[in-house]
Amino acid sequence: MKQIYAFAEGNRSMRDLLGGKGANLAEMTNLGLPVPSGFTITTAACHDFQAHHQLTSSLLHDLDQALIDLSQLTEKKFDSTTNPLLVSVRSGAPISMPGMMDTILNIGLNDQTVIALARLTNNERFAYDSYRRLLAMFGNVVYGIAESAFDDILTKIKQQQHYQSDLDLTAADLKTIVTEFKALYEQSTVGRFPQDPHEQILTAITAVFDSWHNHRAEVYRQENNIPDTLGTAVNIQEMVFGNIGDRSGTGVAFTRNPATGANVLFGEYLLNAQGEDVVSGIRTPQPLNTLAETLPHLYDQLQDISNTLETHYRDMQDVEFTIENGRLFMLQARNGKRTPAAAVKIVVDFVKEGLISQNEALMRIQPELVNSMLHASFEAQSLFDHEIIATGLPASPGAASGQVYFTAAAAKEAHDNAHQHVILMRQDTSPEDIDGMVVSEAIVTARGGMTSHAAVVARGMGATSIVGASALQIDEIQKVAHVNGLTIDEGDWVSVDGTAGNLYLDQLPTTEAAIDENLAQLLVWAKATAKLGVYTNADTPADFKKALAFDADGIGLTRTEHMFFKPERLLQMRRLIIAEDAAGRKDPLAKLLDMQQNDFYELYQLANGKSVTIRLLDPPLHEFLPHDEVELHQVANQLEIDPEQLRARVTSLKEANPMLGHRGDRLAVTFPDIYQMQIQAIMNAVIRLHQEGLIVNPHIMIPLTDSKTELAWVRQLVVDQIDAALADQHWTVDYTVGTMMEMPRACVTADQVAEAADFFSFGTNDLTQLTFGYSRDDIGSFLPAYLEQGILPADPFQTIDVDGVGALMQLAVDGGRKTKPDLPIGVCGEVGGDPASINFFEQLGVTYVSCSPYRVPVARLAAAQAHLRAIEPTLQTI
Amino acid sequence: MKQIYAFAEGNRSMRDLLGGKGANLAEMTNLGLPVPSGFTITTAACHDFQAHHQLTSSLLHDLDQALIDLSQLTEKKFDSTTNPLLVSVRSGAPISMPGMMDTILNIGLNDQTVIALARLTNNERFAYDSYRRLLAMFGNVVYGIAESAFDDILTKIKQQQHYQSDLDLTAADLKTIVTEFKALYEQSTVGRFPQDPHEQILTAITAVFDSWHNHRAEVYRQENNIPDTLGTAVNIQEMVFGNIGDRSGTGVAFTRNPATGANVLFGEYLLNAQGEDVVSGIRTPQPLNTLAETLPHLYDQLQDISNTLETHYRDMQDVEFTIENGRLFMLQARNGKRTPAAAVKIVVDFVKEGLISQNEALMRIQPELVNSMLHASFEAQSLFDHEIIATGLPASPGAASGQVYFTAAAAKEAHDNAHQHVILMRQDTSPEDIDGMVVSEAIVTARGGMTSHAAVVARGMGATSIVGASALQIDEIQKVAHVNGLTIDEGDWVSVDGTAGNLYLDQLPTTEAAIDENLAQLLVWAKATAKLGVYTNADTPADFKKALAFDADGIGLTRTEHMFFKPERLLQMRRLIIAEDAAGRKDPLAKLLDMQQNDFYELYQLANGKSVTIRLLDPPLHEFLPHDEVELHQVANQLEIDPEQLRARVTSLKEANPMLGHRGDRLAVTFPDIYQMQIQAIMNAVIRLHQEGLIVNPHIMIPLTDSKTELAWVRQLVVDQIDAALADQHWTVDYTVGTMMEMPRACVTADQVAEAADFFSFGTNDLTQLTFGYSRDDIGSFLPAYLEQGILPADPFQTIDVDGVGALMQLAVDGGRKTKPDLPIGVCGEVGGDPASINFFEQLGVTYVSCSPYRVPVARLAAAQAHLRAIEPTLQTI
Repeated sequence: MKQIYAFAEGNRSMRDLLGGKGANLAEMTNLGLPVPSGFTITTAACHDFQAHHQLTSSLLHDLDQALIDLSQLTEKKFDSTTNPLLVSVRSGAPISMPGMMDTILNIGLNDQTVIALARLTNNERFAYDSYRRLLAMFGNVVYGIAESAFDDILTKIKQQQHYQSDLDLTAADLKTIVTEFKALYEQSTVGRFPQDPHEQILTAITAVFDSWHNHRAEVYRQENNIPDTLGTAVNIQEMVFGNIGDRSGTGVAFTRNPATGANVLFGEYLLNAQGEDVVSGIRTPQPLNTLAETLPHLYDQLQDISNTLETHYRDMQDVEFTIENGRLFMLQARNGKRTPAAAVKIVVDFVKEGLISQNEALMRIQPELVNSMLHASFEAQSLFDHEIIATGLPASPGAASGQVYFTAAAAKEAHDNAHQHVILMRQDTSPEDIDGMVVSEAIVTARGGMTSHAAVVARGMGATSIVGASALQIDEIQKVAHVNGLTIDEGDWVSVDGTAGNLYLDQLPTTEAAIDENLAQLLVWAKATAKLGVYTNADTPADFKKALAFDADGIGLTRTEHMFFKPERLLQMRRLIIAEDAAGRKDPLAKLLDMQQNDFYELYQLANGKSVTIRLLDPPLHEFLPHDEVELHQVANQLEIDPEQLRARVTSLKEANPMLGHRGDRLAVTFPDIYQMQIQAIMNAVIRLHQEGLIVNPHIMIPLTDSKTELAWVRQLVVDQIDAALADQHWTVDYTVGTMMEMPRACVTADQVAEAADFFSFGTNDLTQLTFGYSRDDIGSFLPAYLEQGILPADPFQTIDVDGVGALMQLAVDGGRKTKPDLPIGVCGEVGGDPASINFFEQLGVTYVSCSPYRVPVARLAAAQAHLRAIEPTLQTI
Repeated sequence: MKQIYAFAEGNRSMRDLLGGKGANLAEMTNLGLPVPSGFTITTAACHDFQAHHQLTSSLLHDLDQALIDLSQLTEKKFDSTTNPLLVSVRSGAPISMPGMMDTILNIGLNDQTVIALARLTNNERFAYDSYRRLLAMFGNVVYGIAESAFDDILTKIKQQQHYQSDLDLTAADLKTIVTEFKALYEQSTVGRFPQDPHEQILTAITAVFDSWHNHRAEVYRQENNIPDTLGTAVNIQEMVFGNIGDRSGTGVAFTRNPATGANVLFGEYLLNAQGEDVVSGIRTPQPLNTLAETLPHLYDQLQDISNTLETHYRDMQDVEFTIENGRLFMLQARNGKRTPAAAVKIVVDFVKEGLISQNEALMRIQPELVNSMLHASFEAQSLFDHEIIATGLPASPGAASGQVYFTAAAAKEAHDNAHQHVILMRQDTSPEDIDGMVVSEAIVTARGGMTSHAAVVARGMGATSIVGASALQIDEIQKVAHVNGLTIDEGDWVSVDGTAGNLYLDQLPTTEAAIDENLAQLLVWAKATAKLGVYTNADTPADFKKALAFDADGIGLTRTEHMFFKPERLLQMRRLIIAEDAAGRKDPLAKLLDMQQNDFYELYQLANGKSVTIRLLDPPLHEFLPHDEVELHQVANQLEIDPEQLRARVTSLKEANPMLGHRGDRLAVTFPDIYQMQIQAIMNAVIRLHQEGLIVNPHIMIPLTDSKTELAWVRQLVVDQIDAALADQHWTVDYTVGTMMEMPRACVTADQVAEAADFFSFGTNDLTQLTFGYSRDDIGSFLPAYLEQGILPADPFQTIDVDGVGALMQLAVDGGRKTKPDLPIGVCGEVGGDPASINFFEQLGVTYVSCSPYRVPVARLAAAQAHLRAIEPTLQTI
């Protein structure tokens, strides 16, 4: 088995065997770029080492040969007193683990070769500078001598000499330092620094292999889900020196600006320095554009190499280089990290430059990156200056500051009357808080998960939100919150980072964000590519406007109940609920009809021909009734009834498990007049618009269906009401009546259900609740443990559970299409905006997804990628 | 199309065409029994009539021919003044609708033939008695003249003559009555009684066909799910007369005693009477055994015919007969209704007599009949004497009287201290009421359904129960209940009929019931025949003893949490729950361990080698905490903690949807020490029994499993604890670890789940809840409407929903057996004791069912029937 590859023998496809760094050094070598010679010891050799706890004899044998080859190539030799070979020993795993593992430079130097190096370069200061660096790195990496012990010596000498900078050190100083460093070895348990270059290199390789299992590396791998079994390669490379003098230096560069994506070299460098000086921050590096002035031909060469690399790698590169006496050497190249905005600009530019195809561009952007581009954020410096006072789940991204209020009413009043920016901070929220939520810049709760009421509503509105910030002890009555010894009073300013889930005191400055031209371009391509439609969940014209701005295909879900929580409507809803019979429901229903028909009118008008799907009333009636004594008396007063009468109604409607209770189409069977009112409201709006010249085809969705029989019953109720409304106005209109697929029973009997349905729309929230038997509201008590123990790979309310929920969806799709091959099937649950889920939905053959307005661009890109994966599986995300 | 069949042309298999009565008259005719001649007009002719609203000409033609044939056969003729033909016209549908439709006797009589009849029989009184009967029946049935109008005339004459009985009427009286009856026709809108026998018969046939759609018949069909489309046949039969004199008579007989099943003729008769006199109760009939004295040769002939019919029909028959001048005629034969006990004795005797096979006997008994034999009932007369004050769902069968208490504590005290028979009457019950429930004769609730807590516990204990008696307004604080203006105070006597769901005031006398020798025999056959095992759900030795008395195969489900509700255990459970950490849980767990190991020891000891499956803790922890303020303070006091601390714990554990919450194996992941304690308790009991010489192989069941990963995690916890316990005692034992299948996700991923499971057991209650999204506790608000509207065919918690829940079970069985072909699979939900469900489980290939102790015999018989249906599909239930 070949355990060592010279750079010329490898290429970038050999990342698993040679590590990322080794593979790229090989690739650059074969591109003819100026790469110092060297070779890579494979990850397979690392496995062997781990198995035998030592370097195997076959590896030692191959290493001897490799070093001989390197000597011939470089015309340098270990221990040579004329032209000594010096090398670096660097780790390099198949997946980058920045800073986690070890590197040793200048191997080959000893008391003899340092003299030779001084003579050869005519630069004694450089030679001893290199030697002291070797001693410190080697001592630290191989023998575990504290870095600070070396630093202390350096600092002592500088102080004695009153130096400001390392550059002030003279050759004599450095000799002293070398002597003291060597003394440090002898004071330690190690004994002495090995003078033999062979011993140095073997010990260094061993140290690198050992470093695979050092504590920080293991923690990093665990956190980043990198398998322990990968192992690391080791790169042995001829040293080039940036620290020989002012025509030498070292630097890092990005082939484009990683913050903006602008097509210009970007980076920094230090003259007369070795690589670690740039990273360590001991000296302040220069911006790379100054190199064009100081060493213009090198800058030009670097630009040429940059172009070569981008053309070759077809992506923006992050390179390390060294200049040795006016000669440029490349030491590393890899795909560069970049901001979301830069990432989008770069791929769009690449397409324009002909470097990649549109499809490749679409595949290269992680959809979640798009999400972060749509929300404001705090300025980076301000985050650095302020302390996080609490963390919670990042329920809805963005950044917002405002004054804290602990009740919806107080928030609304502060907003309406005092024109304040308000933050609503509560234990948790309920539908009755909607008035306060609408006016809030951000919503913070102490309880709840990513799909709690606060989280769902905030995402729907695009408001920033943190939920489940359990360190907050909120007293809504006393109007105060305590957190880790701090007190937040009503009216205090706080800042909420919904992207990171962090809470700060005071008002932090923000940077706004929006869809820029590059993102807009990408989304146009995505729309043209995607097979899945992308609709929005929208309950109000405001929601819908946002979604239309993001080019939603229409509304996939309007939750009509959200229209009932405005105060004057809540009053009518409550009158309806406490009515003894259908006669008593008549008047409140008439009032609600007036209001709802305007809601629908506005939505249809905005849609302007785009499809709008309206779901009939879903929640149990008790959600509209008061939940505590104080409110009970207020409401009784408002309704002008005896509180005992109201209490009796509240009690009789109370449910042990509301999620599994008397709601959805079950209400239609017991209180048909409510659905009839909603249908009438829809039809009034439709007919009015028709008369105004806009043709609207209503799509009506029945929630909670369990069976064909049930759906057929409710469908008949709906159809009768539509027919009556049309007959009344002597009008005709095409319409469809479909059903939510959210009960497992509907999924397993989908072939039957489809007989009564014009379309299906998966309600993945309820379907996930019922498939797992998990209540979204209660999952917080065990979900963290389940994730930690690996019992769940992810929160199934955020990413579809393919094996379980997905299997039921598959049954539903197969059953539905068996009965009606062209049945439109949507997804309107929370995961409708989740990229991984969307990928599954594409495979499932779903027709469209529907998600909250701010997720529309994310979903659009994810839908395009899902389709590309299906039709062009060789395209890869990078 | 042949529309008329002479009796000699038909047979009993032609029930759909000839109706039940016609088919049996034909069968008896062909058996050579003395049946008066006649013919049947088919149900097809009825359909024709309904379609044309009149008798078709083809029918009229055929009818002429049939009457000619009948004349030849009887040597009698319509309108003959020497030997007139008289016939009866009787309805007869394919499904018996007793008393719902019409019959007219003595057709053919008129002013002329009545004289001929008098001369022929030398009995003028008889002739005019028959004529007045015809006039009254015809007038009522055909023309709708009120029966009472005829009765008034009869009564008037009797009063004028000071007669006691109809028998006192002389021929002269009857002539007067006939005259007055005819006058009644002329006073009515009708005009006059038709003297033409042909007109009489056509009008009568029309009236019978019309009666198919009379109001009471339509209501009856609706209530009994009889299709409207069946139609009725009409039987035309030569009259024979039981009212000619003392050597004439009429009666009904059962071939065996329908109350006890004893093999002796049973029935009653009247001399000198026509059929309707026996039914109408005008005269008191004689017991049939006296016929052996009065007309012994006729009694012997009837006994012979009875034997012939039983041998031929292979079932007990209910016959009608008439004696005309010492000659016996059979007018009807059909399978006789009987009590459950008689039904069982009869089939067991039939097997002994070689009349039917064991398998036929098993198929003939409806399993629910067995259930009613296992429970006490109120004496029939006492039910007649007492008014029902409230009705509810018949949650647990039986009959019990006792004094009412409104709290579990008061019930327990009255029972323990005053040795009263107590009835617990509550809004609904919760696990904390268990102490009071255990001592109660019956449990009555105003709320809840057939699977509410009260219902499930009562059935489990075999206590009588009515639930959801919503007319009861119960004030548990004031200790009073109101119902329809009545008041029930604490201590008042009430009687509870759990079989019918009725509540009475006062103490009603009961009759006890038990497994008699015939039922025992039947169940022995059932056990030998059934493929499905029948286990019991039992949480206490008392439950288990009952089930063993009913020959349960073992325990399929022990709900260990029910062991935690005794006061001293509840205290430890609460200490456990309020503990801050594992250290704080140690002491209460140790105390619970002591108690639980004894529970298990007793169950295993009783099982004596039979299999016992123990389910680990299932409910959410908050079920063990106080639910109101008063109790909160009591419990805080008992636990010696600050009420606020307890309140905080209660609040933090509170769940929006406990059914979907932190329970079952989710508790194992967050609080592993609770399951560890339970396993240790099991192993302590097992090892102790092993040391005492009884080998016990524990079967441990994990509730609420969603996935293989989850089950594997919990299984490891269980196995580790078992291994530790065994190692500690240097013992080995075989054990299995299986899972409840109650989450849809587990069903659709059953192939994976089976990898970590030694057995499956369906929890159909939870599975039904999740498949439909129905909360058992909340379904009452819409289930009645769903049943009424036909949206649901049955309560899915009582009879398995084959299309939905059944489909998931099928996926689970297929998946599980794909991975482990011999995987044992049980059902331990509520439907485990439901015959229709058991039939489905047999088809599903389930291994066993488990049900409450009192359902074991029902389930056993149902299991036998299910298997017979599978292997011998030609066997029919009767």
